[in-house]
Amino acid sequence: MAVSIEVSALSELYGAEAFSVNCPSRVVLDHVTSKWGVLVLVSLKGRTLRWGELRRSVDGVSEKMLAQTLKTFERDGLVAREALPVIPPHVEYSLTERGDEVVALLQPLLKWVAVNAQAILGDG
Amino acid sequence: MAVSIEVSALSELYGAEAFSVNCPSRVVLDHVTSKWGVLVLVSLKGRTLRWGELRRSVDGVSEKMLAQTLKTFERDGLVAREALPVIPPHVEYSLTERGDEVVALLQPLLKWVAVNAQAILGDG
Repeated sequence: MAVSIEVSALSELYGAEAFSVNCPSRVVLDHVTSKWGVLVLVSLKGRTLRWGELRRSVDGVSEKMLAQTLKTFERDGLVAREALPVIPPHVEYSLTERGDEVVALLQPLLKWVAVNAQAILGDG
Repeated sequence: MAVSIEVSALSELYGAEAFSVNCPSRVVLDHVTSKWGVLVLVSLKGRTLRWGELRRSVDGVSEKMLAQTLKTFERDGLVAREALPVIPPHVEYSLTERGDEVVALLQPLLKWVAVNAQAILGDG
C-alpha cells in the first residue's frame, strides 16, 4: 500500500503557512535575499552612505535597481533615508535597528560564501 | 576641497574583489540566495526527498525552476542526487556536507524573517 507522505518541513520549522506563496514571510525573504538587496544591506553596515557611495560599493548595480531596492528597504523599515536641505541635494542612507538585525544574520552567510566560492565553482 | 572617498566595505569585510561582478563569490551568493534556492536547501535539511516531495515542500516552484535550481546545487556540490535503479525511476536528493554548512547559516535568517515578516509588511 502506498502511503502518502505530507512534506512540510518549512511550516514545521517556521510555523504554519510560513514561506508559502504570497505569505508575508515569503515576500520579506525575497526582499532581503534579492540579487542586490543582500549587497546593499551589507554595504551599509555600521555607516551612512550617500547614493553615489552606495552605488560604487555594490559593484554592477544599475541606478534603477538601486533605487528600487532602496525604496523596498525603506518601506520595510530596514533602511533609513535622510534628505539634507542643502544645494545640491544630498541624500544619505543608513541601516535602521531592524536593518542591523538582518545584516548580522547575512554576514556569516557572506563570509562562508567568500571563503568557499572558489572551491565550489572549481569543483564544477 | 572635495575629498574623494573610496567606498569598498565589501572588499574590506570579505577580501579584495569579493562580491564584485563575475567574481566567484558573487556567483555563489546568487545561487544560494536565489528565489527558489533558499527554500530548496532548507527543505532538504536533515532528510532525503524525492522530486515530488521536494516540489510540494517548496510552495509555488515550477518544474523548470526546481530542475534548474537542483542542477546548479548539484554542480556546486551542495546537493547530492541519487538515481535508484528501479522502475519507475526513483531519484532522491539530499544535502552534502557543504550543503549542511550553508543551511546552518540560512536557518537563522529564515527564522528572523518568519518572526518579523508580519511587522515589516504591516509597517508599510
